[in-house]
Amino acid sequence: MTDLRLGLIGTGRIGKVHAHNLKGAVRGAELVAVADVVGEAARSLAAEVGVEWVTNDPRELLALADLDGVLICSSTDTHAELIVAAAEAGKAIFCEKPIALELGAIDRALEAVERAGVTLQVGFNRRFDPSFAALRDAVDTGRIGTPEMLRITSRDPEPPPIAYVRGSGGIFCDMMIHDLDMARFVLGEEVVEVYAMGSVLVDPAIGEAGDVDTATVTLRFASGALGVIENSRRAAYGYDQRAEVFGSKGMVASRNHAAHTAEISDATGVHGPLPHYFFLERYNQAYVNELQAFCDCVRDGSPPPVSGADGRTPVVMALAAGLSLRANRPVRLEEVRPEYWAGRTQ
Amino acid sequence: MTDLRLGLIGTGRIGKVHAHNLKGAVRGAELVAVADVVGEAARSLAAEVGVEWVTNDPRELLALADLDGVLICSSTDTHAELIVAAAEAGKAIFCEKPIALELGAIDRALEAVERAGVTLQVGFNRRFDPSFAALRDAVDTGRIGTPEMLRITSRDPEPPPIAYVRGSGGIFCDMMIHDLDMARFVLGEEVVEVYAMGSVLVDPAIGEAGDVDTATVTLRFASGALGVIENSRRAAYGYDQRAEVFGSKGMVASRNHAAHTAEISDATGVHGPLPHYFFLERYNQAYVNELQAFCDCVRDGSPPPVSGADGRTPVVMALAAGLSLRANRPVRLEEVRPEYWAGRTQ
Amino acid sequence: MTDLRLGLIGTGRIGKVHAHNLKGAVRGAELVAVADVVGEAARSLAAEVGVEWVTNDPRELLALADLDGVLICSSTDTHAELIVAAAEAGKAIFCEKPIALELGAIDRALEAVERAGVTLQVGFNRRFDPSFAALRDAVDTGRIGTPEMLRITSRDPEPPPIAYVRGSGGIFCDMMIHDLDMARFVLGEEVVEVYAMGSVLVDPAIGEAGDVDTATVTLRFASGALGVIENSRRAAYGYDQRAEVFGSKGMVASRNHAAHTAEISDATGVHGPLPHYFFLERYNQAYVNELQAFCDCVRDGSPPPVSGADGRTPVVMALAAGLSLRANRPVRLEEVRPEYWAGRTQ
Amino acid sequence: MTDLRLGLIGTGRIGKVHAHNLKGAVRGAELVAVADVVGEAARSLAAEVGVEWVTNDPRELLALADLDGVLICSSTDTHAELIVAAAEAGKAIFCEKPIALELGAIDRALEAVERAGVTLQVGFNRRFDPSFAALRDAVDTGRIGTPEMLRITSRDPEPPPIAYVRGSGGIFCDMMIHDLDMARFVLGEEVVEVYAMGSVLVDPAIGEAGDVDTATVTLRFASGALGVIENSRRAAYGYDQRAEVFGSKGMVASRNHAAHTAEISDATGVHGPLPHYFFLERYNQAYVNELQAFCDCVRDGSPPPVSGADGRTPVVMALAAGLSLRANRPVRLEEVRPEYWAGRTQ
Repeated sequence: MTDLRLGLIGTGRIGKVHAHNLKGAVRGAELVAVADVVGEAARSLAAEVGVEWVTNDPRELLALADLDGVLICSSTDTHAELIVAAAEAGKAIFCEKPIALELGAIDRALEAVERAGVTLQVGFNRRFDPSFAALRDAVDTGRIGTPEMLRITSRDPEPPPIAYVRGSGGIFCDMMIHDLDMARFVLGEEVVEVYAMGSVLVDPAIGEAGDVDTATVTLRFASGALGVIENSRRAAYGYDQRAEVFGSKGMVASRNHAAHTAEISDATGVHGPLPHYFFLERYNQAYVNELQAFCDCVRDGSPPPVSGADGRTPVVMALAAGLSLRANRPVRLEEVRPEYWAGRTQ
Repeated sequence: MTDLRLGLIGTGRIGKVHAHNLKGAVRGAELVAVADVVGEAARSLAAEVGVEWVTNDPRELLALADLDGVLICSSTDTHAELIVAAAEAGKAIFCEKPIALELGAIDRALEAVERAGVTLQVGFNRRFDPSFAALRDAVDTGRIGTPEMLRITSRDPEPPPIAYVRGSGGIFCDMMIHDLDMARFVLGEEVVEVYAMGSVLVDPAIGEAGDVDTATVTLRFASGALGVIENSRRAAYGYDQRAEVFGSKGMVASRNHAAHTAEISDATGVHGPLPHYFFLERYNQAYVNELQAFCDCVRDGSPPPVSGADGRTPVVMALAAGLSLRANRPVRLEEVRPEYWAGRTQ
Repeated sequence: MTDLRLGLIGTGRIGKVHAHNLKGAVRGAELVAVADVVGEAARSLAAEVGVEWVTNDPRELLALADLDGVLICSSTDTHAELIVAAAEAGKAIFCEKPIALELGAIDRALEAVERAGVTLQVGFNRRFDPSFAALRDAVDTGRIGTPEMLRITSRDPEPPPIAYVRGSGGIFCDMMIHDLDMARFVLGEEVVEVYAMGSVLVDPAIGEAGDVDTATVTLRFASGALGVIENSRRAAYGYDQRAEVFGSKGMVASRNHAAHTAEISDATGVHGPLPHYFFLERYNQAYVNELQAFCDCVRDGSPPPVSGADGRTPVVMALAAGLSLRANRPVRLEEVRPEYWAGRTQ
Repeated sequence: MTDLRLGLIGTGRIGKVHAHNLKGAVRGAELVAVADVVGEAARSLAAEVGVEWVTNDPRELLALADLDGVLICSSTDTHAELIVAAAEAGKAIFCEKPIALELGAIDRALEAVERAGVTLQVGFNRRFDPSFAALRDAVDTGRIGTPEMLRITSRDPEPPPIAYVRGSGGIFCDMMIHDLDMARFVLGEEVVEVYAMGSVLVDPAIGEAGDVDTATVTLRFASGALGVIENSRRAAYGYDQRAEVFGSKGMVASRNHAAHTAEISDATGVHGPLPHYFFLERYNQAYVNELQAFCDCVRDGSPPPVSGADGRTPVVMALAAGLSLRANRPVRLEEVRPEYWAGRTQ
């Protein structure tokens, strides 16, 4: 079978990761076109990975007849429109998360995908991390019985620039969205209600930007199972990414990953290595795996492992968490409706 | 210096632990009198530990002139009254937690102690566990910077008999009260607001008794730090007792304790030992330490490490959690007032 | 059943441990007599644990008619003679290791025990440590298949005083003897050949005393299984006590024990607690367990868990290791014969 | 700077690994020619990685004028001759371990390299594993003081086919050679004497082939430091690759690597994942790193991190271990001389 021919839109940090993975690690696909509105960025990445076709106009890339699919890695506010355009062009679509911060835009994008009958996979890469996949597997196989409590701890090593924070849609849409997806993924069921508590403890500027930097969200699942997500924008020891599911027959818990296993014992204690510093190191393999899964399902015609609906629900959860924080009360997900939220970002 | 002469009131499970510890492990004190309203129980334990003076009337014990102090280990509903009586008799008092489930009773007991000027230590034994003490120490010494998030996981191996559940005052007063105390102890500051979510997932009979068996409580501390406590009445793998404090400079986390460290690697995985099955094994050393601390402070005249106020506040927190669960809203601790709560247990 | 009445000979460090354990932790036995050639030491310990009968003449203690058994905790060079005397007095005997450093003396002691038909248990306390017992159990139950390789790492926190080193019989008889016993215990089979390599790396004075401070001994078991023991007289991080058995179906390994489980993660790494500093902390429970086992088997008439032969063989192994070190060649245990070794200590 | 142009000789398991790494993971180098005496194997791999120039004659490859370097991954008995030929052709050389099993052949190869002044790096990939590199680093930086004891445990998941065993040169040359290299690498000093003990416990056929399948080798380093290497041809739990260095100020130890960190706690224990099954998984990153290091030093003109002498010494150590096993006595490395060993493989 011939390789998939793929185009990349957006050559920022994550676009680069996917381009290099397509070149070196993913089988059965070839990157043949690169677009970025900043033409210089597009040309530079294309040269790095040996791609000749370059443009500063994403629409031009989508118009290429012999392209099987496209990776949308541009800024969040362009995702929904590009999905519509790519779907209308009949391309398979891999889109970075979130699809959009506004439910109406998400719904329009998903409708276009539905109409065109193309594949859409959303970039919740952590589902492809071996440790989180092992958690899901322990739940799926009944190894720990019926899930009753979930805990996810997720802390970044340091806060993003304050300008980024301002445009990010807030900690729930920007950072916790991965954990909200993880909650659904690992338990395999839906959340019906959330309660958020938050504080500004890391940087007052984050508070001035209308956001919090430290937050916990309590989740009630449809089955009655409970969950807690803890987020901080800064951890002195690096990227903290742990999860734990407690069930009727036992518990499964994943620890942080480190670059090596060497421990030093001296007169002051036993000292192990720090966790990986940030997501590129920690989720290195997950990024390869998600792209491989996308390519495989496009080739096979099988449904993608992270669907458009999987991309929409965490946004609803994040919006509910934002409302809960502002109102200081639990919020049911059914309160979050497109008409209500039109034009708001959080 | 001569040994303290102590009396024991209540010879149930925990009374036995203290009696044996006084005999074998605690220095500077001697158990000389035992009381239990079930005379046979008192005589049996007294014989076991070689104590000659036995009664079925606690008041009679309190009237002994040459007794320096008393351990109150009888049923919860007798604690407050016995504290009053012991204080009036001028005895130093070690009282098992909780002092009472009703704030008015607690306040009357604490006033009697205050008036008499006697020592009162409340039996929050976990503060004396080496692992929890190490957490507190890491916070106290500034080792992890300013605390920002706290997590406590506490799960019993199996639920108590349903009759016990009915009279227990509910999961927050009966079980989480230890964790509520631990939250204050480890962070060294007060909680101002709580939000509780609960479910009945372990045994429907617990729900029929008006209680939940699975609960999370989110805590807001005065400083803005956040906390989460997770409780379950049943864990397949035994007694789950972990805590974690995240701060501006790092994190301190304690794992479960096991009876040994031998791990087996075979074709199916790497298999370690279970945690200690329940509190007598896990907190064995903590029980010795708390009694030693009590005896030491009585002899020294120094203030007890767990004061009457330390006994009262977790009850307020537990009552607030109960209200939060019923009302499904966050509750500020200041809402919990004696007059409001008079005559209610949760 | 009435309690065993026991006497203690020798009130040094280990005698004190046993005396306190008899008072506080061991069931079914009572310490009623204490002897030490230094009368003041005997009186002091006796007062501590509430024993009235005290002597500075061990023979006088052995002559007590109503004594069921005796713990021999005096200096090594007195063990064999006291065993003979105690056996002739018909007392059950618990003797600290080693019985003697000279095989003829050991054999005379064991013959006296045999003749008298009394119980003799040798103080290889580590067999009663929960982690080492778990290793033995994993082997015994076939959990790891047929044992093929054994590793024991044993390092003291700091070297003993040089005067002690001079009279100790050398690192193999003094320190590794515990590990040599452990090798037999854990594998449940005999060693046939040893090869020792040693160095003086910790303190030149140890070399000047004719000893080494760093040593490895390779063991060949009768079945062909191989073993390695590593010893050092000094470990910066405390008392290192680990063992590992590799078998046809898997491996069992025990780690060090620490006082608590709290780990700190900060910008420099993940920091756990040190192992217990030395044997009194690490083997605290093992000392209680071995004495309980001794008392139980004396009361039951069952054979002791560590026999006289179990006391003799590790001495043979240690002597073989010493010969191997001096000759720099492997030595078979059958080369170590009483007549050959008469009058030598290593 | 233009990419290095490299050729590959030998397209077996390890040749494939390097070819794929050159394509996907190593920067600054390009694979442009592939040779294998089995032409079909060469063509198949070349097609996989998109290389057009293919031959079944390695000499033809070495004659290519525009080739900067060559990877020698053919069978061991061809390494030395190919090194000579490649050196004479002026190519930089990466050669899989061991250079040869016969010292004369090694010396002839190293002389040719010396004469030609080309780069030669030997494929001791484990030096590039992050965990072993961390051990070395802890020693190098003085973090654990002066090294005193080394332990390396190395066990394969299952024995190779018996035909392979027969031609392998024995467990020391074939399997332990990696550990012998590691011993020198981690401690940064030379071994002067070895003592080997071995058994046939895994498969009698290995014994019939004149080899052992279970072995320990004790090492004496020049400084007096001691070391132990444990090998088994079969471990039920997978690939066991651990090392530990004990020094005057502490210890550094590396554990096995696993594919994920998820642990399951249930009623029977706490169950973690198995180590990686074998070397391709475990040393995946190390293979990339060693090739990157080779390419970097060829481009920079810096000396290779694993020299020809580094390739020779472990063979001397392995031959000494073989002699020790057969003679059952310690053997000094200086006993192993080319003239003595001429024509013998172990």
